[in-house]
Amino acid sequence: MFVVQPGRADVLEDLAARVQVLEDREEIRALIMAYGEAHDARDYRSFAALFAREGEWVGGLGSAKGPEAIFKLMDETIGHDPQPGGSGTYHVLTNDQIAVDGDRASATTKWIYVTPGGDGSPKWVMLGHYVDEFIRENGVWKFLRREATADIVASN
Amino acid sequence: MFVVQPGRADVLEDLAARVQVLEDREEIRALIMAYGEAHDARDYRSFAALFAREGEWVGGLGSAKGPEAIFKLMDETIGHDPQPGGSGTYHVLTNDQIAVDGDRASATTKWIYVTPGGDGSPKWVMLGHYVDEFIRENGVWKFLRREATADIVASN
Amino acid sequence: MFVVQPGRADVLEDLAARVQVLEDREEIRALIMAYGEAHDARDYRSFAALFAREGEWVGGLGSAKGPEAIFKLMDETIGHDPQPGGSGTYHVLTNDQIAVDGDRASATTKWIYVTPGGDGSPKWVMLGHYVDEFIRENGVWKFLRREATADIVASN
Repeated sequence: MFVVQPGRADVLEDLAARVQVLEDREEIRALIMAYGEAHDARDYRSFAALFAREGEWVGGLGSAKGPEAIFKLMDETIGHDPQPGGSGTYHVLTNDQIAVDGDRASATTKWIYVTPGGDGSPKWVMLGHYVDEFIRENGVWKFLRREATADIVASN
Repeated sequence: MFVVQPGRADVLEDLAARVQVLEDREEIRALIMAYGEAHDARDYRSFAALFAREGEWVGGLGSAKGPEAIFKLMDETIGHDPQPGGSGTYHVLTNDQIAVDGDRASATTKWIYVTPGGDGSPKWVMLGHYVDEFIRENGVWKFLRREATADIVASN
Repeated sequence: MFVVQPGRADVLEDLAARVQVLEDREEIRALIMAYGEAHDARDYRSFAALFAREGEWVGGLGSAKGPEAIFKLMDETIGHDPQPGGSGTYHVLTNDQIAVDGDRASATTKWIYVTPGGDGSPKWVMLGHYVDEFIRENGVWKFLRREATADIVASN
């Protein structure tokens, strides 16, 4: 029979907690990508569902709190018009810096907004960043607050 | 002597399975990057070796199944011409969304194809995405199917 | 009483080592992002603190060894001028390929240097890559050597 050293169970608990943080970071990365995908597909029902009950969106189009208000803001400004194959605009998402703290997390990331340019080649229209707060709600990571700031944007 | 609670061994098994998924996702990320590296180095032997025995490549240059056929397609269209320091073209790879399911996995990612432009600065020639299926073959993750789609491309 | 199979403790040790590698890769990703953040904020005190005691920076501006010499090089060429909100230039960082080996690690990544262009839209000024060596120093991952190479750069 194998004798487990005292403290071995604690080691297992600690290890499980560390694995949880690694998984949480990956789930938050997936959430950030799901946002970009829903945005580019003009699917603002899926987009709004990524926010917590008290989740806020703040950006150039205004601000809104809660999934229904966020849906309404996006529908009225951009237009809910789901196109599973994509709408022709693209969010390139990079530079993730994510910090997990239990059932809360925060992040900054960069976004690059791309559309077809005059000659058909990709036009880099804007570069900006997101500042995010996340919450684990019913076991699922959601945006608690997402602030989208445009850092470089064409003047016309 | 320390007494392990009933079920502790199962906890360890479960934890090991979760760690495996985290490692798998990182190995798949590395595979996606190795593809870009081999492509940019015009090293189509290394490129073809990233595909499973039954692996398929589908894209603007045609389609091929199996490493030898994929090598041949790339050699005949682009040209096998290994340049370890790079050939002067670049695949910027972003927005990975990877789902692992045992010895299979799937992913979508974005690719940006960059070359030197007229004034020497980077020219963003194309933006597209990959839809991938992966298989663990002899313990190593390989492409089972990679479909490359150009979403924005200059008309001339 | 639950009986642990012989070898179970070894399984736990092995698992802990695998989790450590996953954490190390994430810490190195965070280090790479912290470098870009400090650079864009012109905060060369924070920038220099990311290097090990014997850490080297090698690039187009010259080369330097040790945090103080690296700070001096950056201050004399670009200018230490901390702007927490950013200085108006951006490092987009992608394509990480990181290999961890105990308390050492190595990586290649791509960087894209972006500034506002003539019409205010993002101008992709340069594309390059980093070749990195890392060391764990007092429990913290630091750059042991970072070489920055510009691969595509405007001639004027």
